[in-house]
Amino acid sequence: MATVPTGRSRATIIDVAQAAGVSRQTVSNSLKHPERVRPDTLERVLAEIDRLDYTPSTAATSLRDQRAGAVGIELTGLGTTPSEALAPFLLGLAVHAPAHDCHIVTFATDADRPEPERYRSMWRSRLVDAFVMMDTHPDDPRPGWLRERRVPFASFGRVWDDPSFTAWADVDGRAGTSDAVDHLAARGYERIGWLGWPDGSAIGDERRSGWVDALERHGLDGPEARAEQDLVSAMAAAEGLVDSVGGGGAIVCTSDVLALGVHQVLLRRGLIPGRDVGIVGFDGSQTARTHGLTSVHQPYGAIADTLLTQVHDQLTDDELPSAGVMLAPELVPDASTERT
Amino acid sequence: MATVPTGRSRATIIDVAQAAGVSRQTVSNSLKHPERVRPDTLERVLAEIDRLDYTPSTAATSLRDQRAGAVGIELTGLGTTPSEALAPFLLGLAVHAPAHDCHIVTFATDADRPEPERYRSMWRSRLVDAFVMMDTHPDDPRPGWLRERRVPFASFGRVWDDPSFTAWADVDGRAGTSDAVDHLAARGYERIGWLGWPDGSAIGDERRSGWVDALERHGLDGPEARAEQDLVSAMAAAEGLVDSVGGGGAIVCTSDVLALGVHQVLLRRGLIPGRDVGIVGFDGSQTARTHGLTSVHQPYGAIADTLLTQVHDQLTDDELPSAGVMLAPELVPDASTERT
Repeated sequence: MATVPTGRSRATIIDVAQAAGVSRQTVSNSLKHPERVRPDTLERVLAEIDRLDYTPSTAATSLRDQRAGAVGIELTGLGTTPSEALAPFLLGLAVHAPAHDCHIVTFATDADRPEPERYRSMWRSRLVDAFVMMDTHPDDPRPGWLRERRVPFASFGRVWDDPSFTAWADVDGRAGTSDAVDHLAARGYERIGWLGWPDGSAIGDERRSGWVDALERHGLDGPEARAEQDLVSAMAAAEGLVDSVGGGGAIVCTSDVLALGVHQVLLRRGLIPGRDVGIVGFDGSQTARTHGLTSVHQPYGAIADTLLTQVHDQLTDDELPSAGVMLAPELVPDASTERT
Repeated sequence: MATVPTGRSRATIIDVAQAAGVSRQTVSNSLKHPERVRPDTLERVLAEIDRLDYTPSTAATSLRDQRAGAVGIELTGLGTTPSEALAPFLLGLAVHAPAHDCHIVTFATDADRPEPERYRSMWRSRLVDAFVMMDTHPDDPRPGWLRERRVPFASFGRVWDDPSFTAWADVDGRAGTSDAVDHLAARGYERIGWLGWPDGSAIGDERRSGWVDALERHGLDGPEARAEQDLVSAMAAAEGLVDSVGGGGAIVCTSDVLALGVHQVLLRRGLIPGRDVGIVGFDGSQTARTHGLTSVHQPYGAIADTLLTQVHDQLTDDELPSAGVMLAPELVPDASTERT
C-alpha cells in the first residue's frame, strides 16, 4: 500500500535496509538515483519503503549541512523575444543535476528589467545555494551585483564586463563559423558570403572572425551583409547577398533567424536551399530543425555539466576556477547544404 | 559587508526586526517577497540582515511542517520534437509560484520513454511535495501511476484516460477555432478552409469542431485537408487547400506548424499571406511570432496559476477539485490576416 505524505513516519533508513536485505547506500540510491539500482532490487526496496512508511529527511540533512542542495536559474528573455536556448539549456541542467547531487530551482519575475535583488532573496532564504545564469550581456547588472555580495554563481556565456570572473562556460563561435566554411567548401560551394549582425556585438563579431579566418585559409573571398535579429530585416539583407553569391554559392549566418531570412528569400524566388544556394545557420534551434537548415549546434548538455561543476567547486572550496571553459560547437548538416 | 554562506550565523529574525525597527513579518517579506516591501525599508532590513549575518532557517521550517515547499515539473518532449509550450509554461509557473508560497523544481531523464519511477523518487526524497505535468496523452503511464500511489499532482491538459481526475486546467480548443472563423469572417475572407491533424487526436478533433460550429453559424462551408505535425507534410497538404479556398479565402489550422506550411506554400507561389489568403494558426508559438501568423494563444500564466492552486488544495485538504478548469484562449491578430 502506498501512503500519503502525513509526516507520521518513524522508520529509519536502517529499518528499510534490513527489511530489504540491502545496504543503506542502496536504499539511498533507490530514492535518489533509481537508475543505478537493479530493477528487482529497486522494486524490493521501494516495497519496503512503502510498507514501513519510511520517509527520508532531506530537510534534516539540509539543516545539518546548511545546504539547500539546489541551484537556481532565472527564466529570462521570455517576453517578446524568448531565447530558443532556454528550453534545451534547462533540460541539460535537469539531466545533469543528479550527478552533481543537486536539483534545479527556477524563478522569474514579470518585471521588464532584471532584478538582481531577487537573486539574493532566493539565496538568503536558503532556497538555493548558488545560481547559473544565461544571456549575460555588456552592462548586465547581475554578475557584478552577485560578486559584490559573494553569492556563488556560474554563467553560460562570458561575463563581458569582468574578464577576471572565470566561472563560465561558453561556445567557441569562431570555431563554429570556421567549420561552416570548411563544410561548404568541402561540398563544392564556390562563393561563400556572410550575413551577420551589425558591428559591435561581441558574439556577432567573434562569429564573423571565424568566417574571415576560414576564407583566408581557403584563399577565397566573399561578400557580406548585415541585418538585425528579425526575419524582416534578414530577408531584406539577404536579397542582395543572394545575388552576390549567385547560384552554386552559399551564405554563412550568425544566427538561425538570419539563416531563415535567406531561406525565405530563396523560396520566394523559386530556388531550392542547398541545391541552388547553400545556407548555414548558428544555434541549432527549433527553427533550424523545422526548416531543414544546416546549423552550428550549441552543446547544451556539456555546458550545463560544466557550470554545475563550477558552482559545486565554489561551494566546497570557495574558489573560482582558474579559467573559463570554451566548448566546441558542432555543425549538424541538413537539407540546406545538400547539393542534390 | 556581505557574508559568505558558512552556516556560522547566530542572529534570529527578532534581532533583525529590532535592529531595523520593523516587524518580523517585514523581515520575512524582505527575504521572500521583496516586492511587497517599501524600497527604503527593504534596504534598511537587508543592511541589518547583512550586518548581523542573519540566515533564516528554511530547512528548519521545512522539517517542522514536513513540506519541501516545492512543486516539481518534468522536462519532457525536448528530444527530436521539443514542445514550444515548455518555455512559456515554465515561465508562468515561476512567475506565479511566490504567490502560492512555493518554488518550482525541474527534473528530467535522458531516457527515451517516460519514467514514472522518477516522480516517486523526487517525492519520496522530499525534494517536492507535488507535481504539475504537461503533454499528457492517451496511454500516458504517469497519471495512473501517480494516482495509485497518492502522489499529489495537477495536469496542464485533461487526463484523457481518467475522466474522474479533476486536477487539470486546459485550453478550450473549440472556442479558439470558432473565434478564428469569426475573426476571418469579420475581415471579409470568403471561403474558410480547415487544415487539421488526421482524425483520432482528441485535441485535434476538438479544435476542428469549433471550425465546423462556426461555419454553420455563419451559413458557410469550406474545404478541409489533413497533415501530420511537420512542415513537409503541412506544405504538401496546403497545396490543394490553397487552390480550393482561392484568392480572398482563408485557412484555419490546428497548429502553428501547419499554419507555417500554408505560409510557405503562399510564399513559394509569390502570394502574400493575409492580402491574398488569410491564415490562422494555434498555440501562439515563437514560430507564429517569427512569421507574423495570426494565432490562437494559450493563456500560460492563468494555466500555471490554476494548477498551483489545485496542488495547493490537494496538499492542504487532501481533496481533488470538484471539476477541471477550462480556460479561454485568445486570438492575437498578426500580418497573416491583414487584407491590405
